[in-house]
Amino acid sequence: METTYHMDPEAFRRHAHELVDWIIDYQERRSHELPVLSKARPGEIRSRLPAAPPTHGESFEAMLRDVDEILLPGITHWQSPNFFAFFPANSSYPSVLGELLSAGLGVQGMLWATSPACTELETHVLDWVVGMLDLPRRFLSTGPGGGVIQDSASSATLCALLAARERDTGFATNDRGVEQPLVAYASSQAHSSVEKAVGIAGIGKDNLRLIEVDETFAMRADRLEERIREDRERGFIPFFVCATVGTTSSNAIDPVPGIGALCQDQGIWLHVDAAMAGTAALCPEFRFLNEGLERADSYCFNPHKWMFTNFDCDCFYVADRAALIRSLSILPEYLKNRATESGAVIDYRDWQIPLGRRFRALKLWFVIRHYGLNGLRAHVRRHVELAQAFRGWVEASESFELASPAPLNLVCFRHRDGDEVNRAILDRLNRSGELYLTHTVLDDRFTLRFCVGQTHTELDHVAAAWERIRETADAVRNELQS
Amino acid sequence: METTYHMDPEAFRRHAHELVDWIIDYQERRSHELPVLSKARPGEIRSRLPAAPPTHGESFEAMLRDVDEILLPGITHWQSPNFFAFFPANSSYPSVLGELLSAGLGVQGMLWATSPACTELETHVLDWVVGMLDLPRRFLSTGPGGGVIQDSASSATLCALLAARERDTGFATNDRGVEQPLVAYASSQAHSSVEKAVGIAGIGKDNLRLIEVDETFAMRADRLEERIREDRERGFIPFFVCATVGTTSSNAIDPVPGIGALCQDQGIWLHVDAAMAGTAALCPEFRFLNEGLERADSYCFNPHKWMFTNFDCDCFYVADRAALIRSLSILPEYLKNRATESGAVIDYRDWQIPLGRRFRALKLWFVIRHYGLNGLRAHVRRHVELAQAFRGWVEASESFELASPAPLNLVCFRHRDGDEVNRAILDRLNRSGELYLTHTVLDDRFTLRFCVGQTHTELDHVAAAWERIRETADAVRNELQS
Repeated sequence: METTYHMDPEAFRRHAHELVDWIIDYQERRSHELPVLSKARPGEIRSRLPAAPPTHGESFEAMLRDVDEILLPGITHWQSPNFFAFFPANSSYPSVLGELLSAGLGVQGMLWATSPACTELETHVLDWVVGMLDLPRRFLSTGPGGGVIQDSASSATLCALLAARERDTGFATNDRGVEQPLVAYASSQAHSSVEKAVGIAGIGKDNLRLIEVDETFAMRADRLEERIREDRERGFIPFFVCATVGTTSSNAIDPVPGIGALCQDQGIWLHVDAAMAGTAALCPEFRFLNEGLERADSYCFNPHKWMFTNFDCDCFYVADRAALIRSLSILPEYLKNRATESGAVIDYRDWQIPLGRRFRALKLWFVIRHYGLNGLRAHVRRHVELAQAFRGWVEASESFELASPAPLNLVCFRHRDGDEVNRAILDRLNRSGELYLTHTVLDDRFTLRFCVGQTHTELDHVAAAWERIRETADAVRNELQS
Repeated sequence: METTYHMDPEAFRRHAHELVDWIIDYQERRSHELPVLSKARPGEIRSRLPAAPPTHGESFEAMLRDVDEILLPGITHWQSPNFFAFFPANSSYPSVLGELLSAGLGVQGMLWATSPACTELETHVLDWVVGMLDLPRRFLSTGPGGGVIQDSASSATLCALLAARERDTGFATNDRGVEQPLVAYASSQAHSSVEKAVGIAGIGKDNLRLIEVDETFAMRADRLEERIREDRERGFIPFFVCATVGTTSSNAIDPVPGIGALCQDQGIWLHVDAAMAGTAALCPEFRFLNEGLERADSYCFNPHKWMFTNFDCDCFYVADRAALIRSLSILPEYLKNRATESGAVIDYRDWQIPLGRRFRALKLWFVIRHYGLNGLRAHVRRHVELAQAFRGWVEASESFELASPAPLNLVCFRHRDGDEVNRAILDRLNRSGELYLTHTVLDDRFTLRFCVGQTHTELDHVAAAWERIRETADAVRNELQS
């Protein structure tokens, strides 16, 4: 027996238990002690790390101490109940357990054959989710469609675009490249990932039409129709529309029924991106979010945003998996196996950009089983109630105004005194470390975003945030006036 | 206080401790009790899962019991010391701790500003790795280059191709689409991800030239040069070459010095894919792997293959980060922030396909610190020694022969009695559950692959495997003769 440098099982047990205790302790500290937004300056964290890696192994105690002393000051606490920035990337203990199990098993799910349970649990749980959100049955794996877990909505959108590109170019783009003048469509408020995907796929950003929006920041279906007609007249081939249910900027909801009818009529692939808002369809009262979805060719939402499942976990569905697989499948000799050749199994490497994949479904399965449908609904419903309470305070305020409809858990608002004041409020709030908000621009005006979705955000956090926002606004105005 | 369905901290502590114990127990069982290759039939695992998700939450005990009873029979044990298939996707306890910490922190690293430590630790550790592998200094972040963690070599290759596409089309592809007849090159033995990337990027697979290989299955630089000249004469624009250091099929090593000189002369982007083999450069005696790398524009290798770091963790380097960033950057209003605008920070969302990213560097940092450079070297060196011992047994055998050079940890070999016998040997070995091998085709002949790289593989596992292979060959020959 030669020297081993591996951590022995007893040491792992001890350190893992220590780390679990550390995580629980961290969850307490990030609620009460630590500033939400890191105050680190560029290069500050790095400057404290040793220039060279160690020649000899170090103790776990030393590593955990450095996490505390060096890294923590450079962490922005996304799981803080006072985090109202961007979209949530919420998490939960059952999900952390799922990640731990996935790491402990260390299996590859690139092919069904490389770990059948990895593929079959994922297919099964994604079928569950179709029922949980009341999505169209065409997305079930038991028909010609099916679901897969992607790392993010960006990747889901890219995969949807690639499948559409193949379908509309007679499955030739993979062979000959993009030869036809393809054009894609999304609203001017769509996520930046649509533009990124169009660039990656070689379509060209000039061939993405950003359709104007109405006063609710939702895509105007009439303008989409006009633009498609104009493009056809000019010799372009419209092939892909991305509609958004809950834009990143303001949670605007594109009119999917009208867009879907148009796409169906025109033979254009419709992808619906419901990254954050989609989760709300767990609750029957929010199922208006699904209207028109029966005409979508693909759909995605992110349990890693607002369904208590750690990043990364995006659920991506297609109505016809054949187009997706044709756009991404390659079968070299060293991956050939009987199960694949039988056609009886799903090989998820053909549903995504990378080849390898870890046991992705475990954490989502743990989350769904731990909370149950009722538990998930209760927490999502509460987040919406909290955001609606905040919205009510804004509406009742003399100093602030709503900047857009706030149908769910995101409230866009601003101080009536203009951009300079709003910028100053945001900056001062975030520097306080007590809460974290981000901004957008709506109607050419600097606008504050308040998004409720972190796992442990409750009424007292939202009320304290509102109080702090009002105090800060008063202080900013006094200073600017003096 | 309203009803909460969250797992409380004490329950999490108890269940996490149980799960840690379960993982340690699993590591023992997968070494001794469990068949390496799952015996599940298509649909078998899924058929045992309940048709509908639970309405009410379930206990963690029920979940863990189902892992044991339903999932484990459908798991192929990639961490078994008797796993010699494909490439390793090895793992270690320090890495599992890193994954657990990343999940417990639950932060987003899409922008420097969203958690500075997340970005700075990654940049720093990737600079460490440049020194550890003695990679060219042009890949250090302190100059115009730098490194980033991708999910896989597939994604790294795609990003390299996109950066090359932008550079060689005057940074216009993102805007106008792929208008010029671009062509890419790789050897006929290159990984399937090159073909996949060419398809995704809209170049078209017909515009990928698969260059013939020599008797060691390495790319022929003379044929590459001829092909580039022919393509230029025909009006094509050669823009990208992917050289492989350690092909998936047989660990063949393309002649990077000659290919690099050619690419430099011709102004073609050279990407070097060293997915598994790259790790060996930890040891000075294997640094021949890096020859010519100073001329590469980009490089990747996977610590998640053979450096004891859980999947997913690919280290991707570019010599000029500007081209990469220009090909992937988009900055919508809701992501604008002072740090980004200052230009003083790295925003890794501009270095990858997805927008979001978790705290990726933690597990790699833990692995490097736990093992130290000496520990990593010792284990990699031992894996090579074990593979070389196996190679010696093959060479000394009358029944088997080597099918290709075996410079490192992968031995390609076959029984002298032809494809039918080799297929039967492979099938019977894998069905035994005692070990797991996969195959390839070399010189049009069915070839067995024996790859040593799992964390806990030692001499007794390799010796037992060889014994079992010989016994199985004898049994197969007896049956086929009778």
